[in-house]
Order: sequence, then structure tokens, then C-alpha cells
Amino acid sequence: MSDLPSAIEIHEEGPREGFQFEKKIFPLADRVALVNALSHTGLKQIQVASFVSPKHVPQMADSAEFFAAIEKVPGVKHTGLWLNEKGFRQASAVKNVDLKGTLLFYASDAFARQNNGCSADEMRRRQDDSIRLYDNAGIAISSVYIMTAFGCNLQGEIPIEAVTRNVRWVMDRFGESGRPIPAIYLADTVGWAVPTEVERRVGAVRELAPTARVGLHLHDTRGVGSANFYAALRMGIDLFDSSVAGLGGCPFAGHTHGTAAGNICTEDVVFMAHEMGINTGIDLDALIDAALLAERIIGRPLGGRIMHSGSLKRFRSAAGFQNSA
Amino acid sequence: MSDLPSAIEIHEEGPREGFQFEKKIFPLADRVALVNALSHTGLKQIQVASFVSPKHVPQMADSAEFFAAIEKVPGVKHTGLWLNEKGFRQASAVKNVDLKGTLLFYASDAFARQNNGCSADEMRRRQDDSIRLYDNAGIAISSVYIMTAFGCNLQGEIPIEAVTRNVRWVMDRFGESGRPIPAIYLADTVGWAVPTEVERRVGAVRELAPTARVGLHLHDTRGVGSANFYAALRMGIDLFDSSVAGLGGCPFAGHTHGTAAGNICTEDVVFMAHEMGINTGIDLDALIDAALLAERIIGRPLGGRIMHSGSLKRFRSAAGFQNSA
Repeated sequence: MSDLPSAIEIHEEGPREGFQFEKKIFPLADRVALVNALSHTGLKQIQVASFVSPKHVPQMADSAEFFAAIEKVPGVKHTGLWLNEKGFRQASAVKNVDLKGTLLFYASDAFARQNNGCSADEMRRRQDDSIRLYDNAGIAISSVYIMTAFGCNLQGEIPIEAVTRNVRWVMDRFGESGRPIPAIYLADTVGWAVPTEVERRVGAVRELAPTARVGLHLHDTRGVGSANFYAALRMGIDLFDSSVAGLGGCPFAGHTHGTAAGNICTEDVVFMAHEMGINTGIDLDALIDAALLAERIIGRPLGGRIMHSGSLKRFRSAAGFQNSA
Repeated sequence: MSDLPSAIEIHEEGPREGFQFEKKIFPLADRVALVNALSHTGLKQIQVASFVSPKHVPQMADSAEFFAAIEKVPGVKHTGLWLNEKGFRQASAVKNVDLKGTLLFYASDAFARQNNGCSADEMRRRQDDSIRLYDNAGIAISSVYIMTAFGCNLQGEIPIEAVTRNVRWVMDRFGESGRPIPAIYLADTVGWAVPTEVERRVGAVRELAPTARVGLHLHDTRGVGSANFYAALRMGIDLFDSSVAGLGGCPFAGHTHGTAAGNICTEDVVFMAHEMGINTGIDLDALIDAALLAERIIGRPLGGRIMHSGSLKRFRSAAGFQNSA
């Protein structure tokens, strides 16, 4: 218990993950309402939308209008996702986007080829271009994602060395040049992680990059999400991505094996953290309201638990009443 | 990692939990088909039905026919649940019931009053009658349940002492008389547990009852189920109750706060255990098939994850093919 952090930082990925995952394009007003609700929960970073090919991802075709329509709340960063320079240029020209410098790596060659049309090695080399791009734009590189860090549906088992060679690259580029070392995220992109591997892989990253902040991007594809979250907390991890209501994957889309890949659910992990005395800076009640709004927008039951079962607050206060009666 | 048990025992509660929870009475043939499917998965103990008032629980009115209709599989115990002597007498007269001697305790007074119409103290005293009952019937007392061991919707926080006084009672009755000490289950009846409390409360039981096997009956009401399961594994716990497909509570019954209280999902925890090298003796594929059958019978999406996303087996074998291509 002494290993648990006293406070953690949670980055919300629900709007981008959720609305991109769905086939349907939801009304802009609904999407804006969800982001605005989230912006008043205490969350400090919300990923709103991506700047990617509207031909491949028509759901994200109006990202510029989406960003322009949201309410800016002091202290809340509204981030976007892009996969190449073109996307970054688009995002840079859009109102309300808080630009974050992020580098992207793959532990899986096969996944890199599918998503970016190049090997994991080549993807690493391309990050030098990204560094130049961000340098020229005057944007700090604050995070690094190592995707498919726990396993890959295309390639199968991912050896730990396929993860650590990316960490070595980061330490070479950043540690030696005296640049601030970005947070290194291990992303369980397709839901292979189990607690013992969280421990092993976080441990391996820490050995190579003892001064780096390590983050986890976890999915609850196979019901192990909260266990992985807890294993990470025990390792002192204090930086997580998650999705309100579990948006971004749907375990209930029939038995279409392989499509279910929702992030861990923001309000569920916030509840769990608070119950263990870990501060998140987030108002759980407001977050549950946002999750219920997300469910109304999507129009079918979502995977989050606490939004359906409720937190323990009302039981504690009701009990106080009963005990004194 | 060294604390994890090499093998665990999982008792299936799905049929009784699931068909009792649902308002509808499902066709006997469907219920029998589910139990028969479960009996061929490697599960060693399956709770089939309860012997309780058909007036209060009409879903369980035909428990005798249900038991009589199931296939008996060597090595598989088909157990029933009863709450008093009358229920035990009924169960004793029914074909195919594997009678297990179980004592029932409450950590919450308010919950004891609601469920049994007496205080937790009085419930403890009544267990002396149960001991006599089982002794006279020649049935070993193999397990003890401490319900609401982590918190109670009626009473609120449950102090650890409300748990341990039941453990003391058990050790007085069993330890001193030289009787074999039954397994002591902490039951998170209404879904309050978090990992730190699993550690604290299991630790407290172990201190008082170092020779007792400790089991956990966990619910996933608030999305913390797999984290609690992992915390328990780390404490060396090797005895769990769970429900196939997450039967026995429904987080998707609209926003009826407080009704969602499904057990942890059998195939999800089996998957997680196997991925961490922990043996369960269970065939995961057969179990997933049983979960899909349960979902077809109930007729709506159930909370289990792995039944929708699939295990990692096919990715591992497909990857082998791809790698060699």
C-alpha cells in the first residue's frame, strides 16, 4: 500500500476515441456538450478529436468546427490527435487546440505496417522528423507513446526488447541532448496486458529511463483493465489515459470478436482511486453525469460500471441517517 | 509476482445467481443446458439453484426438478443454497444435490436484519444450530461466509472488527474443538471492496486464523472486480466464487442505481489467471462457449468481456502463421 501514489493525473480520451470508433456521425451539438461537461469535472486534459484523413475517418471530418465550438475552461487542455505532419499543420491552424508534442512508436512491426505503412524501425526514424517539426514550431515534446507494448493481434507476443529499444531511442535523443525527457507511455493498444506484464514492462522502462515519468494507456478489452490499473498504481505510476463511460470500444456489438477494445473507464478508475485515498482532482459526481450524457448520446448501454451502479456516497450518507435513528 | 498462487480453485455461481436475479423464469431445458455445459469445462463446483421460499423467489420454485434433470459429471459438485433448516431439509431430499455444510455470518447488522430478520450477533448464535444440524446429518462444514465484509448499502462503512469478530467465533468453535477449520470467505456482497481493503481485511483474517483457507466472493458492481481479484491473488488467495458471463446482476438495466451487483466474471478471471501462468484446471474455450450460451438464454448482452472480445489464442496462432510467411 505504501507504493501507491498520493495523486494521479488522468487524461480523458473519450470524445476522440468514442466518436471515432462509432460508425455513425453524431450531431456536433451533442459532441460539444459532452466535451463541455467533461471540461467542468476537474479533468485537466481532454482529447477532443483527431486530424486525420476525412476519407478514411469521416467521423473526424469536422474536427476544426468541433474545436471551435467548445467552451474553453481555464486550466483544461483540449488536445487533438494527428499521425503525420499534414495533420499537425491542420491542428495548428484550428482555434482552441492545445498543441502537444507527442512522438509515436510501435513495439509491433506488423501493427506499424498496418497503421503507418512502415516498419517499427522506420517509424522510429520518422520521429526525428517529428522532433524537428515540433522544434521548428516551438512546441515542447511532452509525451512518447509506445503502442502495442503488451502484445499485438497481428504479430502475437511482443518481446520486451521490442518495447525497450524504443525507450533506448528516446533516452539517446533526449537524455544526451539535455532536453527534458518526455513522459513515456506504454499503450496496451489491443488489450493484451495483464498485471504481471504491467509490472515487468514498467520495470524494464524504469531501468532504462529512471528519470522519465511513465504513463499507461490501458484498454479493458478482456476484463483485466482495473487489475492492470491497480498493478500500475502499485508501481507508483501516476499518469493514465482513460475514456468516460468506457467510450471507444464496445463489448456489446454482438460477437464480433476482436472489435471490442474500449479504454479503461474514467469514472470507474476515478472511483477506485478515491476509495483508496488517491487524489485525482476530479469531481466524481460531475464525471458520472458526463458519462450518463455520453451514454444518452451514443444511444445504447456503455461498458462503464459506476455510472450504472452509482458511487458509495449516498450509501454512506444514508447510513449516517440510519445509524443515528 | 512470487506471491501469486500457482493454481486457484474457482466455484461457479452463475446459474443460481443469474436465474435468481432475473425477473423472468427461464425454460428448465435452457437452465439445464447451461449447467451441463458448465459441467464439462473443468469447473469442479457449480451452484445450481437455491432452496428458498417459492413465494419470495418464484424463479427457484422448481429447484428439485432442475437438479434432477442435470447431467452428473464425475468430479463435479452441483451445490445448492439454503438459508435455514427447512431449505436444507428440502435440498437433502433432492436428487443430484451435493450437500455442502456452510455457515453464514454478517458483518453488517442492518443487512442481517433485512435478510434474516435478526442482528449479526443473533445470526452468529444461530450458527450453533446449523453446526448441530450438519453434525446430525453427517455433513462436514467446509465453508463459512462473512457477508457484507467490505461495506453495506444499508449500514455504510463496515469496521474491520465487524468482520473479525465472526472469524474469532469460527476459530473458537472449530480451532478449539479440533474440528477441521472451514474455508473462511469474505463476501463483497454489495460491491464495496477495493484492493487496499482486500489486503487489509484478508490480512486481518489471516492473523486470527493463520491455518484457515481464505476465499473471496467478489462482485464487479463498480468496475473494481478484476483489481480486487488481482489484489487477492497477490495475497496468495486461491479460492474464488464467480459467475459465468457475469450473470447475477446487470449493469445495463437502465440507471436503476443500486441494482447492479454481478459477481466477477468466471471466464474473465480464468483468462487473467492463465495469462499470468496460474492454473485453474478450466478449459477457457469451453467456458467462453458456456458464457455465450448464457447470453443467448438471458437474451441480452451480459457484462463479461472476454466472451465478446475473444481470448488471445487465435492471435497467437495467426501470428505464428504470419511470422513464418
